[in-house]
Amino acid sequence: MRTARVAHAGAIHEARPHAQGLQLPDGRALAEDQVVWLPPVAEPGTIIALGLNYADHVKELSKELTQTTRDEPLVFLKGPGSLIGHRGLTRRPADASFMHYECELAVVIGRTARRVRAADALGHVAGYTVCNDYAVRDYLENWYRPNLRVKNRDGGTVLGPWLVSADEVPDPQALALRTTVNGRVVQQGTTANMIHSVAALIEYLSDFMTLEAGDIILTGTPEGTVNCNAGDQIACEIDGIGRLVNTLY
Amino acid sequence: MRTARVAHAGAIHEARPHAQGLQLPDGRALAEDQVVWLPPVAEPGTIIALGLNYADHVKELSKELTQTTRDEPLVFLKGPGSLIGHRGLTRRPADASFMHYECELAVVIGRTARRVRAADALGHVAGYTVCNDYAVRDYLENWYRPNLRVKNRDGGTVLGPWLVSADEVPDPQALALRTTVNGRVVQQGTTANMIHSVAALIEYLSDFMTLEAGDIILTGTPEGTVNCNAGDQIACEIDGIGRLVNTLY
Repeated sequence: MRTARVAHAGAIHEARPHAQGLQLPDGRALAEDQVVWLPPVAEPGTIIALGLNYADHVKELSKELTQTTRDEPLVFLKGPGSLIGHRGLTRRPADASFMHYECELAVVIGRTARRVRAADALGHVAGYTVCNDYAVRDYLENWYRPNLRVKNRDGGTVLGPWLVSADEVPDPQALALRTTVNGRVVQQGTTANMIHSVAALIEYLSDFMTLEAGDIILTGTPEGTVNCNAGDQIACEIDGIGRLVNTLY
Repeated sequence: MRTARVAHAGAIHEARPHAQGLQLPDGRALAEDQVVWLPPVAEPGTIIALGLNYADHVKELSKELTQTTRDEPLVFLKGPGSLIGHRGLTRRPADASFMHYECELAVVIGRTARRVRAADALGHVAGYTVCNDYAVRDYLENWYRPNLRVKNRDGGTVLGPWLVSADEVPDPQALALRTTVNGRVVQQGTTANMIHSVAALIEYLSDFMTLEAGDIILTGTPEGTVNCNAGDQIACEIDGIGRLVNTLY
């Protein structure tokens, strides 16, 4: 099942896909641009993000894949205030020389997970969506745990359009993903290349922090992160999950 | 005005101070141990924490106060799942060799702050409370931005007991604070020694991320952080704000 949250005519609705774009619960079909798309998680809890979870991206950043990176995921948090939805606008700071998109598989927890083994972890997932996890690289003084000026700006976490329930995603480690900037493909990868899988991340995190319904894990991005500019339209797409479009201004 | 949130007889109430301990809105007076104390912020938003914001604490950790630390606050986020209230229990991991408390002034935002100047910043504060911002130092591979196993464990952010409205705190940079472990004073300081003041932090953060009502800033801890053990009762106290008691197990 695919669900979105949209604002239309002064109310928030749960929407479903429709040939025209989307359908509201009362049956009305609408085009994508007739609604405001909200993040598809109504009450986001803790938002966990991953640094350097694809070996090709680590290499691209001219970093060695250290033993630490292999042994333990580089996790950090993002704030709920950074979330925006599909077709939203993200500010590119005027003084930044390098801002990049990051196309990521986002995992939404559906059931409390505490000390869960990897083998059982995917049973705690409600569903999946797409995230564009922007980074303003100018402010990055430490690759291993980026500071808030890099990763927690307003509009810096674009999420959506659809939450795809876990039963429609038999293997989250077999999904092709790509990013286009103004229609040109700039990033291509597959979730098969994650260093720490979705199941391993849930095992790791739930060992020391209880994951609750509404918590979100952003699983990192593959290689292909290039600078983008005000006016660029960025589309992050994951096969079977969705295509998330966003514009910089 | 001082308010707390407590659970009693199957409901959540807003409580006020009373000679006996606290008073419910219906007038009933209760002792501290007759209720479950919840964090005094009903809907916490983004929780921002500070690393190394007291020069004496930096020195204690045998770190140099780098130019970076002076120029820019070391900010990171904590998740809402780590929050517990006054008199709560926090798990000390069995395999940890060094876990310490951190007594901190917690600032609760009351009004949206976006690009606010320091001179106007305190007008955006709803009130203040006390935080015990635990750290499990074993997992710390980087002082400058601690990882989630250090700072985001269940029960790792104790908050309360009272939210003291900003009008009762004319100068948040003139508050004495102290921590006792089993009644013995182990940490003493004053918010006058913060490297980055509350007002400066709001100016810094609101430049790139909008602060909303319910966001919480944990402003860092002074020197005096020592290891504590299962069974220890830790009390963090800030004059004029409150005394927050918590037990490790």
